[in-house]
Amino acid sequence: MYPKEVKIVEVGPRDGLQNEKGQIALADKVALVENLADAGLNMVETGSFVSPKWVPQMADSGEVFAAIKRKPGVTYSALTPNLKGFEAALAAGADEMAIFGAASESFTQKNINCSISESLERFAPVMATAGANKIKVRGYVSCVLGCPYEGDISAEKVAEVSDRLLQMGCYEISLGDTIGVGTPLKTASMLDIVCKVVPKAKLAVHFHDTYGQALANILIALQQGINVIDSAVAGLGGCPYAKGASGNVATEDVVYMLHGMGIETGIDLDKLIHAGEQITARLGRSTNSKVARALSQ
Amino acid sequence: MYPKEVKIVEVGPRDGLQNEKGQIALADKVALVENLADAGLNMVETGSFVSPKWVPQMADSGEVFAAIKRKPGVTYSALTPNLKGFEAALAAGADEMAIFGAASESFTQKNINCSISESLERFAPVMATAGANKIKVRGYVSCVLGCPYEGDISAEKVAEVSDRLLQMGCYEISLGDTIGVGTPLKTASMLDIVCKVVPKAKLAVHFHDTYGQALANILIALQQGINVIDSAVAGLGGCPYAKGASGNVATEDVVYMLHGMGIETGIDLDKLIHAGEQITARLGRSTNSKVARALSQ
Repeated sequence: MYPKEVKIVEVGPRDGLQNEKGQIALADKVALVENLADAGLNMVETGSFVSPKWVPQMADSGEVFAAIKRKPGVTYSALTPNLKGFEAALAAGADEMAIFGAASESFTQKNINCSISESLERFAPVMATAGANKIKVRGYVSCVLGCPYEGDISAEKVAEVSDRLLQMGCYEISLGDTIGVGTPLKTASMLDIVCKVVPKAKLAVHFHDTYGQALANILIALQQGINVIDSAVAGLGGCPYAKGASGNVATEDVVYMLHGMGIETGIDLDKLIHAGEQITARLGRSTNSKVARALSQ
Repeated sequence: MYPKEVKIVEVGPRDGLQNEKGQIALADKVALVENLADAGLNMVETGSFVSPKWVPQMADSGEVFAAIKRKPGVTYSALTPNLKGFEAALAAGADEMAIFGAASESFTQKNINCSISESLERFAPVMATAGANKIKVRGYVSCVLGCPYEGDISAEKVAEVSDRLLQMGCYEISLGDTIGVGTPLKTASMLDIVCKVVPKAKLAVHFHDTYGQALANILIALQQGINVIDSAVAGLGGCPYAKGASGNVATEDVVYMLHGMGIETGIDLDKLIHAGEQITARLGRSTNSKVARALSQ
């Protein structure tokens, strides 16, 4: 019923840190990425190549890629919003890229002032360059269980956008509950509909824990046969559009649940907790991981 | 697959507050109970009648029962460890009582210096008096998914203790993951085994959120047809034997999940959040409910 192995995509260094206000030292970002790889994460979203005007915290992503000591077998990926970003990420030595769409027209309009369809068309040159360079591209779909502007989102729209990204050449689609409002039955129903169009083996889930629902929703995804989960160490992050202080679901809490279920991840929980402790100490805040809180006492 | 309605047993005023160090004013305890009833909770564990030497915070439970304005249809219950406590609770006007056993021999030995079997025998006079007074008694079983002293607990032992409490006359058995270590598959397997002995309709689940697993475990219990859930507003509480700062699963987070799944509870989430805000302000701490944090901003 449950997968035997799950792949965790660690998004802490990118999704987790991108909205931090105070500038985080390059050395701390590098240490975070290296600590995560050391803990056994073999897919680490290391930075993004977006305009520093919009995301100043990620302005030094190129330097992060240049500075990290790479561990064999680990994929260090980057988020790229356009060809310019893709080329910069490629030059920086990113192993893999991620592009993003949303399942909400209002969200897309408010954020990048175009329709969903137009937003995806803009990735065509990125995908062409990726193909020419044999670089794998992951696709994010945001707002899959709700939008801060229009509320409910139809699962058919999620399926449509996911399929479109797949057709464009993405090897995996990560379905994001950007504002964390999803509950288990809505998650189940959304996944049912998306799975009619996109093969399960191509899907990942990406939950924010704003309303504490992330692990319950992940459990549903596991029950439906999905075995790729995005998370951020220490529950770093926080969407600027979501209420509350909670960010991504904490990698530690996901790993605790999976290991407790006998599902392998290849991750060393103690080392992972250490990685979280180090970055939260640098950020001067307490962890959002309950497991880290319980086990570090 | 899921129940249409779920009954929440609010344990905040008792399990939530019992380990608080500083003395909480009687008026604050009374306000908490009244606010919870006002929010639609129709089962509120209001206090306990234990030795004030062991649980000083509950020393004024009789006064709480005397002071609360009662709302029709609400059951105000009390935890009673022995006949003396039971008689005091009866005199105070408690509507219903709760007694407790554990599924761990070491836990029982360390805490009350006797075997599980002896601990249950001690409740015989309580059950006899309850019968004579037509008072319903609820039974708690603690350590159902792990013990702070002996680690793993056999589900067969949980089933045995549950059955024993049922045979003694308890109308419902609340299975407690006292130290919060349970994960979904262990919860599922434990419930499978207990359900062979105790009818589902007689079972409730009681999770602590020490490792963030409570909602995922509750989801499993719902999938197995259990429809009574214990929780504490604002996630109050904290077992002295469990690591970490987390207490009971927060009622707000449970209600958000249930309502999101179309499961009725009769609870007004806004009023519930208000009840939590008021008590956490009095305790001078932030809420453990992610839903309360998200919605009160």
